[in-house]
Amino acid sequence: MTTFDTGVGRPVAVSTPLDIASGLERVDGRLASFFAERTSASAGLGDDYQRLWSSARAAADGGKRMRPRLVLATLTALGRPVDETAIDTAVAFELLHTAFLLHDDVIDGDTVRRGRPNLSGEFAAQAAANGVDRPRSALWGEAASILAGDLLLHAATALVGRVDVPMEARHRLLDVLDHSVVVTAAGELTDVSLAVGLTSPTLPAVLGMTERKTAAYSVAGPTMAGAILAGEDDRLLAALAEYGRLVGVAFQLGDDLLGVYGDQERTGKSVLSDLREGKKTTLIAFARSTESWPTIEARLGRGDLTLADAAELAAVLEDCGARRFVERLLIDQVDRAIAVLDAPAVPPPLAEELAGIARGCVGRIA
Amino acid sequence: MTTFDTGVGRPVAVSTPLDIASGLERVDGRLASFFAERTSASAGLGDDYQRLWSSARAAADGGKRMRPRLVLATLTALGRPVDETAIDTAVAFELLHTAFLLHDDVIDGDTVRRGRPNLSGEFAAQAAANGVDRPRSALWGEAASILAGDLLLHAATALVGRVDVPMEARHRLLDVLDHSVVVTAAGELTDVSLAVGLTSPTLPAVLGMTERKTAAYSVAGPTMAGAILAGEDDRLLAALAEYGRLVGVAFQLGDDLLGVYGDQERTGKSVLSDLREGKKTTLIAFARSTESWPTIEARLGRGDLTLADAAELAAVLEDCGARRFVERLLIDQVDRAIAVLDAPAVPPPLAEELAGIARGCVGRIA
Repeated sequence: MTTFDTGVGRPVAVSTPLDIASGLERVDGRLASFFAERTSASAGLGDDYQRLWSSARAAADGGKRMRPRLVLATLTALGRPVDETAIDTAVAFELLHTAFLLHDDVIDGDTVRRGRPNLSGEFAAQAAANGVDRPRSALWGEAASILAGDLLLHAATALVGRVDVPMEARHRLLDVLDHSVVVTAAGELTDVSLAVGLTSPTLPAVLGMTERKTAAYSVAGPTMAGAILAGEDDRLLAALAEYGRLVGVAFQLGDDLLGVYGDQERTGKSVLSDLREGKKTTLIAFARSTESWPTIEARLGRGDLTLADAAELAAVLEDCGARRFVERLLIDQVDRAIAVLDAPAVPPPLAEELAGIARGCVGRIA
Repeated sequence: MTTFDTGVGRPVAVSTPLDIASGLERVDGRLASFFAERTSASAGLGDDYQRLWSSARAAADGGKRMRPRLVLATLTALGRPVDETAIDTAVAFELLHTAFLLHDDVIDGDTVRRGRPNLSGEFAAQAAANGVDRPRSALWGEAASILAGDLLLHAATALVGRVDVPMEARHRLLDVLDHSVVVTAAGELTDVSLAVGLTSPTLPAVLGMTERKTAAYSVAGPTMAGAILAGEDDRLLAALAEYGRLVGVAFQLGDDLLGVYGDQERTGKSVLSDLREGKKTTLIAFARSTESWPTIEARLGRGDLTLADAAELAAVLEDCGARRFVERLLIDQVDRAIAVLDAPAVPPPLAEELAGIARGCVGRIA
């Protein structure tokens, strides 16, 4: 990145996609060295534990680095170079994300992620191969995933606790991380409450859950952290919190749509999984209030759903207006997010960068 | 505490039990304000989430504050006053301990701790009272306990990340915390491996597990953190790591003995629980290599074990030499820990303080 410091106000940023791409390479490098260091430090602590670290690394490897990208994009759009502190902060959000996925999988009882056995599934299979019965193998898998999540959650927070910035900035970064963790846990609790039937899956409940479970740590947290690293004040942070809330939900709405109407070749996700699982998405929450609900309810959540069944369900969800409703809601969230960027506290280069990211939420479902 | 700074070397400490007692009151106050602040901040995040924070607080309330006590005892024995940083560090170890207990209970499938429903048990009972079936209620309870543990683990690390000390000291404190978390997770994984039958419960395996699961974060970590706060160098830290390893194991050996030979009135723990659970303690690991093993094995782990059965099992464990062996091992660990304190790196007032704590491990089984 080239910055032109005019001596008045903020340096003018001419950030390029290249800066972010090279930053993300450094994020990958830092993640690799973190896992290599921990795997080697655990050499005396048993083979299973070494394997735990390798599998934790594999869990962190599959991501799209959305959160590090947002940290770096915000920082560079604010005219600041990507230093070691920025890389560490970006890595912290990726580790936090991986920790949440590992614990989410335990809570959901999932043993597969992205089409392969996840850490639980892998450990359970290894125990079974060693003659351990099914319930105990499952327990072993779950315990491994809980512990791996703990290790990465601690590492994420410790990484931010170590950054070499003045104390006030460090406290502000930790405030953002605190908020991310506290709000995400609240969202996850609501998600479980929906799953076990303690909360009715109304549209407001599902949207509120999404906002807490995903938006806070995925969009608001990383952009706010980037702004803190750039030395910005709380007015910009407030705008980013609002932007993050809107875009985070929009992103999840996109996931809900792609989960039923997506192209598996492009998304990497089967159009069967959400419907087989009976996942309480916004599509489903909307459909519940329509006359088509009995037709949908009769098939939703059936583990033996075929692709033909899924196509029929998708058509019913379209006919009852659920698809159109969620698409419009997504576009509305994105429009509102872009409007937030009009605030005087948001410098134009950052507004442009973040508007582009928000529009991407519409683009991926087009 | 009164300190006399002679101007040469360390200030001479005249620490009193009163200093530590008043420090522990401040630890309790800090814990109370932490939970009050988090409970109030979660007001907009749902009733269940508020309840999660109240229950997490209850989980932290029952402890004996052994780890905060070790942080403060080390610091004051080194002639330093108990400042806010020390209180925060002490609180961090207590939160870490509570987080480990919460996740340990999930992994063990326990719904009771100290004779009352634990956080999982409480949440499961509430779901059941609201008409949720048994498996889903259990899932709700486990999810709540995983999330509460995550929140406290993050809070513990963040608290140390926020301390107002020079960067080098902060990094050293985080190093100690990293090590505590990493080694404890390894110990917990071995514990599960023993429970599911992937590792044979030999005496070395059980002792190694104990050292990792308990000693690192319970004794070595807190004393090392106290020494770092007092500005001590790595030679003292190495001695404390060794002392912590020995005393941490001795403490657990005491728990194993009290779990079978203790007085419930004094220990608060039934002499039935370890034996009913079939817990792989050092007593049991020793007994496996004796001729009494078939007699023990026939009853161990039976959920319907009576007090009379337990008394008989205790007698067999005594006759086969297990009790004597574990008692001697405990005394040997304590002797070796006290010998470690002879190192020149350990100032006499600290050696005296820590020797007293080590002797306490013998005293409690007398």
